[in-house]
Amino acid sequence: MEQTKYTLTEKELPRQWYNLSADLPNPVPPPLGPDGKPVSPEMLSKIFPMNLIEQEVSTERWIDIPEKVLEILSLWRPSPLYRARRLEEYLKTPAKIYYKHEGVSPPGSHKPNTAVPQAYYNSEFGIKKITTETGAGQWGSALSFACTFFGIDLKVFMVRISFDQKPFRRLMMQTWGAECIPSPSNLTESGKKFLSEDPDTPGSLGMAISEAIEMAISDKTGKTKYSLGSVLNHVMLHQTIIGLEAKKQLKLAGEKKADVIIGCAGGGSNFAGLSFPFLADKIAGDEIVVIPVEPTSCPTMTKAPYSYDFGDTAQKTPLLPMYTLGHAFVPPPIHAGGLRYHGMAPLVSQAIVDGLIKPKALDQLDCYKAAVTWARTEGFIPAPETSHAIAASIEEANKAREEGKEKVILFNWSGHGLMDLTGYESYLSGKLVNYPLPDEKIKESISVLQSLPKI
Amino acid sequence: MEQTKYTLTEKELPRQWYNLSADLPNPVPPPLGPDGKPVSPEMLSKIFPMNLIEQEVSTERWIDIPEKVLEILSLWRPSPLYRARRLEEYLKTPAKIYYKHEGVSPPGSHKPNTAVPQAYYNSEFGIKKITTETGAGQWGSALSFACTFFGIDLKVFMVRISFDQKPFRRLMMQTWGAECIPSPSNLTESGKKFLSEDPDTPGSLGMAISEAIEMAISDKTGKTKYSLGSVLNHVMLHQTIIGLEAKKQLKLAGEKKADVIIGCAGGGSNFAGLSFPFLADKIAGDEIVVIPVEPTSCPTMTKAPYSYDFGDTAQKTPLLPMYTLGHAFVPPPIHAGGLRYHGMAPLVSQAIVDGLIKPKALDQLDCYKAAVTWARTEGFIPAPETSHAIAASIEEANKAREEGKEKVILFNWSGHGLMDLTGYESYLSGKLVNYPLPDEKIKESISVLQSLPKI
Repeated sequence: MEQTKYTLTEKELPRQWYNLSADLPNPVPPPLGPDGKPVSPEMLSKIFPMNLIEQEVSTERWIDIPEKVLEILSLWRPSPLYRARRLEEYLKTPAKIYYKHEGVSPPGSHKPNTAVPQAYYNSEFGIKKITTETGAGQWGSALSFACTFFGIDLKVFMVRISFDQKPFRRLMMQTWGAECIPSPSNLTESGKKFLSEDPDTPGSLGMAISEAIEMAISDKTGKTKYSLGSVLNHVMLHQTIIGLEAKKQLKLAGEKKADVIIGCAGGGSNFAGLSFPFLADKIAGDEIVVIPVEPTSCPTMTKAPYSYDFGDTAQKTPLLPMYTLGHAFVPPPIHAGGLRYHGMAPLVSQAIVDGLIKPKALDQLDCYKAAVTWARTEGFIPAPETSHAIAASIEEANKAREEGKEKVILFNWSGHGLMDLTGYESYLSGKLVNYPLPDEKIKESISVLQSLPKI
Repeated sequence: MEQTKYTLTEKELPRQWYNLSADLPNPVPPPLGPDGKPVSPEMLSKIFPMNLIEQEVSTERWIDIPEKVLEILSLWRPSPLYRARRLEEYLKTPAKIYYKHEGVSPPGSHKPNTAVPQAYYNSEFGIKKITTETGAGQWGSALSFACTFFGIDLKVFMVRISFDQKPFRRLMMQTWGAECIPSPSNLTESGKKFLSEDPDTPGSLGMAISEAIEMAISDKTGKTKYSLGSVLNHVMLHQTIIGLEAKKQLKLAGEKKADVIIGCAGGGSNFAGLSFPFLADKIAGDEIVVIPVEPTSCPTMTKAPYSYDFGDTAQKTPLLPMYTLGHAFVPPPIHAGGLRYHGMAPLVSQAIVDGLIKPKALDQLDCYKAAVTWARTEGFIPAPETSHAIAASIEEANKAREEGKEKVILFNWSGHGLMDLTGYESYLSGKLVNYPLPDEKIKESISVLQSLPKI
């Protein structure tokens, strides 16, 4: 029997996270406040606990993972690295396709890799209550899972249309003891305002962020903080455990290096988690092609400018340097909810600017085709987000066949699709469509950037 | 960091299944045909391929697992063994609680442990098409997953009410390429008959079995067979890989033996899978308490007689020797759909008769309470079936605390509950109820057994 699964024991868990900020050729420009001046750590401390802010601004290469965090991560980590031998055979490719399976976590995705340390650091800082927002529910359920271990009271503002249409994710949060509130709600001033403007609004991620931040900063005892599941530097940092494990596992598989590394990218965290530890080698001289994949319907990296922009629609966050479609951009209703974000993590954006990574965009239909091929050859049913990484890996494997090269392809299998099967139904019944984005719409959407500070 | 997860590599996968038939003090009485005489293998060959029938009647102690089966099982096997340290701490028990995590398979339960070999043996026998039935969808999705690797065309008759109410399981089957048909259907004579009697019938497992068997035997080319996901000897056999792995892993954890072994039991297969390899030691003299757990609403082992009975409502199967509530028994609508079966596997039943195992029954509310405690201490959300094993393990851990004994408890975590969250919603909102079963109803239900042959 040929080996297909490369496992590590608990004892082989990485003990430190890798911080790309230490090695990037050019530093990430600082976040700016409403006055256009760099935001100080003190200003951020209304929203986040100081220990996480320290990680956010750190340029140390290696940062220790606390013992208590490792203990909880070890529930599903080290996650297995697989070789997709049946897919290789199906594609008749000389390439070797490896994937890191992040769907084995209790909530089913890579999100708890940062949810657990965020809950831990908040708890260490004496925080008793956290607020956050969630769209389709991946992040909200991951943070609910994490908070249950630290006795932290969690309020999740869930975009109302998802709250109504996706009861299963909400039920996961409740089972783990969190409170899940449809947003906009009557619990915050901004929620009341949104509702007074349109009582039947389906809500949006922007509105939910506004509510979550407002609830956190309005607790004058300072015991409530806000938590974000992507985009920020400390989130990318926590996710690097994926790539650090994968490096050890590739060695177990007898590979000296990967030639191509692929991850889907919405806010950027699962892509960063796998790829950043390999980018360190690339910066040091290794030849590696690194590809973040986004939907053509939300082409942040492939069609938008690099600019300062707000992280949310309601302009409550500092200005961040990112590839961005503009904070008011409303993406078409593709099934990959986690990839429907207007911006891209500053660290990932900087890596693009520095020429370290090569983004690509794919259509929804091609991704679902790849996802079904995957399920029928490799067995695990992928999340719609993950299907983007699969489709890109298949493209690379086909290219390797045409070139006759035995390349090593490694991609991040960011989560399972068991809670997102309706997209498969649309695809299999022939009803699924693409949402091409006219250049005119992009032009209009990015026009809001003109009035903001330049990088 | 204390170790909580005990993993084996692919190379440590068991290479043989264990057959309890070789060691039982008393043999299981043979299945009987409609004439009351033992059914010959030839008679069974209309329904099953001969290689599986050979396993069904085998008394060999060890049976080789084919290489190709191991290759597919290795996608998620060996499954991890965990120690539930946070639950132990919560219960303040001196007991050590270990659990075998069968929820890591692509369909999310132990079912593919037998689905994969069944698909393999059918394929080896030249079978191109398999029919089966499914209630809530666990078995149907596991067999769909398995058939995709062997290019076998699968038709799943799914009880109509579940087909309508549980679209996600149906979508899993379709994603893996199976056809899922609401039963009763117009595709079979028996389906047409059921529909003519009641066009609005919600369907039942009994009706679905009738349709699946009819479709299999009406293919006169012999290329279509029927497959069953529990109850039969070869199904128990395939599941023993669970217990064989667990034995190796307990050793890794430094345990000489388990004191208590627990599994939930509907048809009996996940319980048998974990416990049978340990029963071999018990028969040889080890002191082990072995507990199958069933719902009080479907008290097959704890309140029903041991008798010959049909495996299905429509009386299409041979008569099997089992603890049974009578083949016409309709269990109350508890959420643990996989435990709503009137009978119990003949091998498990014989182990009860021989005094090797001690069944117990638990109420639905107690099981959900245990499931929520579990999710909030150990993290993974269990299936409603699995919650029965958890509740029984908590009872045993509490008993160990009262007795001041450091017992080793091992139970089978048979599957995750991500597709079954509505039960949690009922429980958390205080709407969940128990369904006590009046003795009168049991008496009435088992009266059908009087006219059948005696054991």
